[in-house]
Amino acid sequence: MKTSFEMQGSARVVPLPDFLARARTLVDTQLDLLLPAESVSPTNIHAAIRWSVFAGGKRFRPALLLAIGETFGAPRDSLMATACALEMIHTYSLVHDDLPSMDDDDLRRGRPTCHVRFGEPSAILAGDALLTLAFKTIAEDEKLTATKRVGLISEIARAAGTPDGMVAGQAYDLEAEARNVAAEELEKIHRLKTGALITAAGRCGAIIADASAAALAAVTDYAGQLGLLFQITDDLLDVTATAEAIGKTPGKDARSRKATYPALHGIEATRKYLASTHAAACEPLSRIDRPTDLLRAIADFILEREA
Amino acid sequence: MKTSFEMQGSARVVPLPDFLARARTLVDTQLDLLLPAESVSPTNIHAAIRWSVFAGGKRFRPALLLAIGETFGAPRDSLMATACALEMIHTYSLVHDDLPSMDDDDLRRGRPTCHVRFGEPSAILAGDALLTLAFKTIAEDEKLTATKRVGLISEIARAAGTPDGMVAGQAYDLEAEARNVAAEELEKIHRLKTGALITAAGRCGAIIADASAAALAAVTDYAGQLGLLFQITDDLLDVTATAEAIGKTPGKDARSRKATYPALHGIEATRKYLASTHAAACEPLSRIDRPTDLLRAIADFILEREA
Repeated sequence: MKTSFEMQGSARVVPLPDFLARARTLVDTQLDLLLPAESVSPTNIHAAIRWSVFAGGKRFRPALLLAIGETFGAPRDSLMATACALEMIHTYSLVHDDLPSMDDDDLRRGRPTCHVRFGEPSAILAGDALLTLAFKTIAEDEKLTATKRVGLISEIARAAGTPDGMVAGQAYDLEAEARNVAAEELEKIHRLKTGALITAAGRCGAIIADASAAALAAVTDYAGQLGLLFQITDDLLDVTATAEAIGKTPGKDARSRKATYPALHGIEATRKYLASTHAAACEPLSRIDRPTDLLRAIADFILEREA
Repeated sequence: MKTSFEMQGSARVVPLPDFLARARTLVDTQLDLLLPAESVSPTNIHAAIRWSVFAGGKRFRPALLLAIGETFGAPRDSLMATACALEMIHTYSLVHDDLPSMDDDDLRRGRPTCHVRFGEPSAILAGDALLTLAFKTIAEDEKLTATKRVGLISEIARAAGTPDGMVAGQAYDLEAEARNVAAEELEKIHRLKTGALITAAGRCGAIIADASAAALAAVTDYAGQLGLLFQITDDLLDVTATAEAIGKTPGKDARSRKATYPALHGIEATRKYLASTHAAACEPLSRIDRPTDLLRAIADFILEREA
């Protein structure tokens, strides 16, 4: 990865993997401070929360928020709480999606899922607690004005809920499992289920940084395409990767008749679609009057990712 | 019920049942506006949400918020969004508590529970959506300043989450089902599982009305005891009432070895505890420099309730 960018407050230029590793460390440190300690009662639920949050996730949504926020000049500490809140919501969605009555997944990132390790009731409660804690975290973030905080909560709640967010996407997905879906519908499912929260991550970074309306619109387009790119690579990895590389049983989505791009279009057409989506993600960057190397590098990184 | 109070903006004096009926109509009307219509896609999840929210609930938490808010002079329309958000959170907690892996209840308020009617995945998602929508509703309430909105979201998130709220109470309760619990622990479970959100309802009413710190402290004590009163009558009704009156299978809690006051102390001692809790709820009202007839009537109403 040759693309590089300047780290905030320094002239040093570092490559994307270093930015991602740095973002991950920052986010993990902050999450550790924000989540109840495992020693705090009721210990079982706090252990379940931490098991799920610290399961080796890539922290993609927080990293995207940090990258966009810093691109537009927001101080890093103004971005951390919202970045962590997004990761809490992402984690809650994984915990609830993995439940026996939903996707019934026993393994995630190479480890037993929350309900396998802590039982189904604790997994349901851990998800509920994470969703609640996410909004508390933003509401209590003294680094931001109250006006900004309510704007961010509104943005994220819309992206996480229904009819325009993640819960709606999951509801469509459940419906779709029972039958064949058209390409158009698959796109809608992905846009809501994965895309909405990724788009919100980008938008929140721009909102915290007081980006202009035009910049916010460009970020929205960029992050929206990035979310789609992310989902297509996910689907492809499910077909082509080994269990070791992706940390779950490959081919599971395909076997369970879950709607995926490769199942619908074949692998070759999916790869072409991937390339055009990557181009569509990079196009809006030309409308941003700031150095966008980092944001382009993120799009490249998703295109080329192996897990 | 002889206690009466003045309706806001009029000299007319109305009895408590009329206030409760009026509050319920106002809240139901507002909830209908705030929740996605059943005709909006994905329709299944919106139908599940509305099935659960419009299941004949008493709207006790919203009514308490309205009563306290109006006691301290808040305009009614400044109270409605937060009142509805509390009911959404209360409903989400019922939907998730009723799930097969939790309390496994098939019947609530005389109707099939959400997962029985719509399936377990939709019930999980409906709960998730309601929790999300609750915070969105407050964040977007233009009747309140942004500062007040973030204060309310923080207050409610703490009361609904863990370690000091409803999710923590539910986690303790799950733990307790497996063994005998001491009286002290039962009190803690109830304080978190039921009391925290009822206390938050009272506090939010006072916060919206800009009540003094002393008044807020009195309201906190009052609502805290009210929550306990509510739980004790709930436990008693489970033992003494008929299925028709309470809309669920009576004795279920006792049979499933769930910790209840009558199971721990016997019915007579529980009735005495009920009376002393009622007195403890009314005591703080003397510290409030406003007419508190309505708040006293609410305590009486819970003491004497039959369902």
